[in-house]
Amino acid sequence: MKTRKLGRGVALVGAGMSHFGAFPEKGSRDLFVEAFGDMRQSVDKGLDPADIEAIYIGNCSSDLFEGQTHLAPLLADWVGLTPRPATRVEDACASSGVALRQGILAIASGLYDIVLVGGVEKMTDLPINEVTDALATAADTAYENPAGFTFPGFYAAMASAYLHRYGATPEALMRVAQKNHDNGQYNAKAQFNASLADIMARKIASAEKKGRPVPTWANEFEFLRDDRANPLIAWPLRLFDCSPVTDGATAVLLVSEEIAGQFSDTPLHIIGSAQASDAALHDRPDLTSIGAAQHASREAYTMAGITPDDIKVAEVHDCFTIAEIIATEDLGFFEPGQGFEAAEEGLTRRNGPHPVNTSGGLKSKGHPVGASGAGQVVEIWKQMRGEAESQSRQIKDVQYGLAHNVGQSGQFVNVFIFERGF
Amino acid sequence: MKTRKLGRGVALVGAGMSHFGAFPEKGSRDLFVEAFGDMRQSVDKGLDPADIEAIYIGNCSSDLFEGQTHLAPLLADWVGLTPRPATRVEDACASSGVALRQGILAIASGLYDIVLVGGVEKMTDLPINEVTDALATAADTAYENPAGFTFPGFYAAMASAYLHRYGATPEALMRVAQKNHDNGQYNAKAQFNASLADIMARKIASAEKKGRPVPTWANEFEFLRDDRANPLIAWPLRLFDCSPVTDGATAVLLVSEEIAGQFSDTPLHIIGSAQASDAALHDRPDLTSIGAAQHASREAYTMAGITPDDIKVAEVHDCFTIAEIIATEDLGFFEPGQGFEAAEEGLTRRNGPHPVNTSGGLKSKGHPVGASGAGQVVEIWKQMRGEAESQSRQIKDVQYGLAHNVGQSGQFVNVFIFERGF
Repeated sequence: MKTRKLGRGVALVGAGMSHFGAFPEKGSRDLFVEAFGDMRQSVDKGLDPADIEAIYIGNCSSDLFEGQTHLAPLLADWVGLTPRPATRVEDACASSGVALRQGILAIASGLYDIVLVGGVEKMTDLPINEVTDALATAADTAYENPAGFTFPGFYAAMASAYLHRYGATPEALMRVAQKNHDNGQYNAKAQFNASLADIMARKIASAEKKGRPVPTWANEFEFLRDDRANPLIAWPLRLFDCSPVTDGATAVLLVSEEIAGQFSDTPLHIIGSAQASDAALHDRPDLTSIGAAQHASREAYTMAGITPDDIKVAEVHDCFTIAEIIATEDLGFFEPGQGFEAAEEGLTRRNGPHPVNTSGGLKSKGHPVGASGAGQVVEIWKQMRGEAESQSRQIKDVQYGLAHNVGQSGQFVNVFIFERGF
Repeated sequence: MKTRKLGRGVALVGAGMSHFGAFPEKGSRDLFVEAFGDMRQSVDKGLDPADIEAIYIGNCSSDLFEGQTHLAPLLADWVGLTPRPATRVEDACASSGVALRQGILAIASGLYDIVLVGGVEKMTDLPINEVTDALATAADTAYENPAGFTFPGFYAAMASAYLHRYGATPEALMRVAQKNHDNGQYNAKAQFNASLADIMARKIASAEKKGRPVPTWANEFEFLRDDRANPLIAWPLRLFDCSPVTDGATAVLLVSEEIAGQFSDTPLHIIGSAQASDAALHDRPDLTSIGAAQHASREAYTMAGITPDDIKVAEVHDCFTIAEIIATEDLGFFEPGQGFEAAEEGLTRRNGPHPVNTSGGLKSKGHPVGASGAGQVVEIWKQMRGEAESQSRQIKDVQYGLAHNVGQSGQFVNVFIFERGF
């Protein structure tokens, strides 16, 4: 493989996000203003917005969600950045991952020193079935949608293939949901800022209040196996295997390495960035891995000069629980077919050797699709700088962090590797 | 103004397009395959597609036009480029202009040497009123659409302000339409591959054939003033002031300067590239110019080290005739308020000092919105290499060419400057 090298170094000096959730009173612009403000506060030595030279916005389809195409200059104007160049990029659920990549390339090109990257999606204005239909336009609409596929179906197909091939059970998937909610309870901005135990307790309290039969789950796994509490969506995926529908925005600030010290004494260095594409799912030889993730991660590790074992914290694209298990294999944390055992053994928990999705992941933090890629970077930023809000969530001494953002059923993947210090 | 400089040079070594028009039997993928094939044929020394390292696709809203989000990896796969990174960018009608810019930055970044840039839009599947509504989502839907604005209305507002401010008449607009159809008659791939005289003759023949009253227009301008032949759309804009609804795709090939000689002995050098944004129209101080075009063109001239008078051929964004007149002022070819006289005096005709839209422009060539920016570059490519199909269309000895691509009502502009030789 050709070793790719950027013309000059790029550093991350700020990262912020809006609250993730359902906000009927807010549009994309409001959410982005909130994320932009949060990002500004994260810049150690301050940021004068007038110094920003270009803006990249990731957004999947405000066209369909809000009837608003051409979002980038509107958002730029909303935070006072006119006449700076503002570009929207779209690669489905990897939209702000690819926006981040364009920001990196723009700085490496020599043209800009200071670039704002954001992501936004306002999804909850539509009825839920229309959200599912809107998201389904990211599939191959010529071949896949006519066969009845929507995204839970794609990932269910991958999950059933995976379980069959490796002899795994849905218990492994439940472990991922349990872990990510366990992490999300410590993330104040997460849509589900609650452990599964919290959610169970709420449901019990609600049943008591309404005078309904009170459930008697012995533990979180009994809860997840309960067809009424956690109904099947598309076998083997149940409700708690799926990330939610979310409103949210994210923003990160990139600068050239030469000037990073003007913004922060502890910037993060972007030492690996790679992107790959693939055929749509119906046209792939294998359902139990995502080729684009394997391509992109190999290229990113080579660029960074490190191995998967060097990664101390990773945010991976867990739009469904099976996606996280497959990702931990594609990224080389575990061998093919061993990701499910790793999940069962707790190897990806905060106290394990490969902490994954300490933010709560898309599963618990929420998945405003166009904002999620940059949102992963917000967590990496906090973890690597020792700023994860709670000691319970903070991983110690992270030298290398990774973000992995997937578009569609794996037709598109971005991988980023960050290094602290040097 | 900061003089921006690319980390390394980028050259254009191929450019092609599909036929533009209405093709009920073709989708985006078919159109793109056609453009890709035409581009390949234009590469003097040949192109092995396996050498392409990354793909950028401009597309305004296949989401709304075809129910297909996430188009980039699908198109990449359709021309055999999996697993190369494939990114869609969207900035309304400037989508493939900004795709071109991302391709330039990607090469300048040092990461890639060979990048494919394409654009596509498949617009004619929807009924015409739904096309207008889909395009209107590129306006500011919070403030402009509720007031009843669609794009003919925006440009009509700019036209009426312009006519009032400078004492111009709709005759100047008609000159632009007449000129662009005059040019388009020599462009075999244009949607309206016909002069206005041709169109008049067809209408007369059709009336005769159907036994209807035969029109007796003395010349093209009587035809354009005829309310029945050229009905008012939004005063002062009539039908022939508006670019058509079009299906089409475009593709261009960028390489680093170091390797341009491997592809062509006569590459074009990209010596200027700039992009700017602006507020939506309702929030701008002036309707008679486009600030983003002024910003972007000044920056591009500075980067290129040339002046507007050095430009021998320009493709400008004539989505409506008034847009071309304003563009020739914003780009510095004429002083503010003198663009309409320049049009009346024929200064932008093929034999004038500032030939504009020799391809026929969006007006006659067609305007598949996401494909138009790269489509302008196809004409610059042909003109600067002496390959415009007909001697009647060819401008002699073009050293510098310019492309100007506008998104929305001017909220977004890209300007590119090309140089031959050196």
